[in-house]
Amino acid sequence: MYKIVSIPGDGIGPEVVAGALAVLDAVAKKHGFEVEIEEHLFGGASYDVHGSMLTDETLEACKNCDAVLLGAVGGYKWENLPHDKKPEAALLKLRKELGLFANLRPAKVYDALVSSSTLKSEVVQGTDFMVFRELTGGIYFGQPRGYDEARGWNTMVYERHEVERIARLAFEYAQKRDNAKVTSIDKANVLEVSQFWRNIVHEVHQDFPEIELVDMYVDNAAMQVVRNPKQFEVIVTGNIFGDILSDISGMITGSLGMLPSASVGSEHALYEPIHGSAPDIAGQNKANPIATIASVAMMFENSFNRPEVAADIYAAIEGALAAGMRTGDIAAPGQAISSTTEMTEAIVARI
Amino acid sequence: MYKIVSIPGDGIGPEVVAGALAVLDAVAKKHGFEVEIEEHLFGGASYDVHGSMLTDETLEACKNCDAVLLGAVGGYKWENLPHDKKPEAALLKLRKELGLFANLRPAKVYDALVSSSTLKSEVVQGTDFMVFRELTGGIYFGQPRGYDEARGWNTMVYERHEVERIARLAFEYAQKRDNAKVTSIDKANVLEVSQFWRNIVHEVHQDFPEIELVDMYVDNAAMQVVRNPKQFEVIVTGNIFGDILSDISGMITGSLGMLPSASVGSEHALYEPIHGSAPDIAGQNKANPIATIASVAMMFENSFNRPEVAADIYAAIEGALAAGMRTGDIAAPGQAISSTTEMTEAIVARI
Ligand SMILES: CC(C)[C@H](C(=O)O)[C@@H](O)C(=O)O
Ligand SMILES: CC(C)[C@H](C(=O)O)[C@@H](O)C(=O)O
Repeated sequence: MYKIVSIPGDGIGPEVVAGALAVLDAVAKKHGFEVEIEEHLFGGASYDVHGSMLTDETLEACKNCDAVLLGAVGGYKWENLPHDKKPEAALLKLRKELGLFANLRPAKVYDALVSSSTLKSEVVQGTDFMVFRELTGGIYFGQPRGYDEARGWNTMVYERHEVERIARLAFEYAQKRDNAKVTSIDKANVLEVSQFWRNIVHEVHQDFPEIELVDMYVDNAAMQVVRNPKQFEVIVTGNIFGDILSDISGMITGSLGMLPSASVGSEHALYEPIHGSAPDIAGQNKANPIATIASVAMMFENSFNRPEVAADIYAAIEGALAAGMRTGDIAAPGQAISSTTEMTEAIVARI
Repeated sequence: MYKIVSIPGDGIGPEVVAGALAVLDAVAKKHGFEVEIEEHLFGGASYDVHGSMLTDETLEACKNCDAVLLGAVGGYKWENLPHDKKPEAALLKLRKELGLFANLRPAKVYDALVSSSTLKSEVVQGTDFMVFRELTGGIYFGQPRGYDEARGWNTMVYERHEVERIARLAFEYAQKRDNAKVTSIDKANVLEVSQFWRNIVHEVHQDFPEIELVDMYVDNAAMQVVRNPKQFEVIVTGNIFGDILSDISGMITGSLGMLPSASVGSEHALYEPIHGSAPDIAGQNKANPIATIASVAMMFENSFNRPEVAADIYAAIEGALAAGMRTGDIAAPGQAISSTTEMTEAIVARI
């Protein structure tokens, strides 16, 4: 029995989460376990009711469950709120409060969709790497910070334990992937905080002598992802570099609407699609539910240690794609377009 | 009469600078002006003689000339020196001492080379934008900075005048380019220093009401360069974001070995190819001199205000390419390969 907090959120969030819950229901029946779903408000949906994007009640619920499933937050409607009331602030608070120090984002090219990348097919086909982004430290949270009339300032800082735990997680994951190569990305030729990051990653690496570790500067890494993405297997990097690199990595796959993510800590975990709330198509049954459905698969891999359930979900997704099912975002010109619910049904039918 | 300090530097630096000086000589003859070239050591070449990558003598020379032409610095040989003796430290010191607060990097796709991009031809063909990267501020120079056993830290800070002058430069350039659109890139949804950056850019924008200004978050911008590079005309951004974005922008053109750069301040200017010293092919007459030759063209545009000379150089480069001249880095499989000197001669012949 798994207790899951579901946060549909804003925009297309409710539609894609509904799709993911249908799939969750299907795998539960097939594999014979129970799921308890508790729904909570977050983001604009919460603000409109409670005047706060993240209430204590939602936060407590997220702390008292086995995993959180999030749709998307934000939208035009809440863009002009003061800084500390915006969805971004709530998201950062949620990450920090739950201790979600690692953000895992796969960059995987689906064979059926290889032509939708802006990169040449021969460059991207077969790309399949995982980005480990540090999520509760670095310049996102460093003090002092602020701005006045004369200047603005932020602090990029990493403590030993912050680097150790994310490095260890990345190496452990690499171990499970047949000792995949780990690329640690920093700017150690200019930044002391990066030199520190690099030193600690190498210390942790001593416990994983069978794994190859490569250091790469962030400017070069950004180029290499575009030049030859297949060279990467596991990437580990800090918060802001990871923000940038994981987005490029997703983009080159040509399947942004397909990519899931996991944000994990030592006690809690949250799963969500990497795409946003897409207010322009919200409520129209047009959104692609696959990224959220794949996020459920990541939940079974990471939080519940049931890779066989995850495998079933991935196979159902690939089956639906192979059968030609396409939402608008991934359809080639002239291809028939399925709705959110049709895509969901096609995947559920294959579980 | 122009006084130019030439710094061949390390690796392929001397070969590509020789090519650029030959072109400089040719345009001087054609347009009837004189150039005085003073050669100086910098980087590893300087370290091997003086035990310092940047001597006071070289620095003084750079301060007392009309423009500096730099080849490339660094190489395996000097990689294990202590941090403060490395080529990177010398480069940062040179930028700071000369007050080179703006780094201009064009991302231009040459029609003749469009197929060498890893992006699809229809995505990149026609791409032609300019990146203005702030070069003497931000996290590269902010205090406090350092690391010890327990943590590492750097400070990202921008002062009003630092943002003002680079924003103004970018808008003025955009004005000359038929009021091109300016995209300012930051991370204002998370960083106060970015919110400050954004505020100041908008203040400066009030003096350029005819120019469209777009704000974009750095993670999205990195994706957009890969998704649809043609949407950009002028980009302006801070030091570290510019480091990353200008490298991606160069890479997607498929012509890294072709791209020049200008680093300019209110009193001094330095021109150099964006590629590195490529020690593996140094001294073999294989390097592509075009990026350095195009850097001379930028010198005439920016420092000497002689666009007609620059136009001659660009036309000669395109002429040589159209005639099928290719160094190894830009040759298609099976295409005949020219040496550095052959490519140089082909360009000189077209001046
Ligand atoms: C919305 C923003 C605060 C957030 C981030 O920068 O972390 C987003 O870009 C992400 O990657 O999840
Ligand atoms: C070598 C390094 C210090 C430098 C930088 O980061 O500025 C380089 O990447 C560049 O872009 O010129």
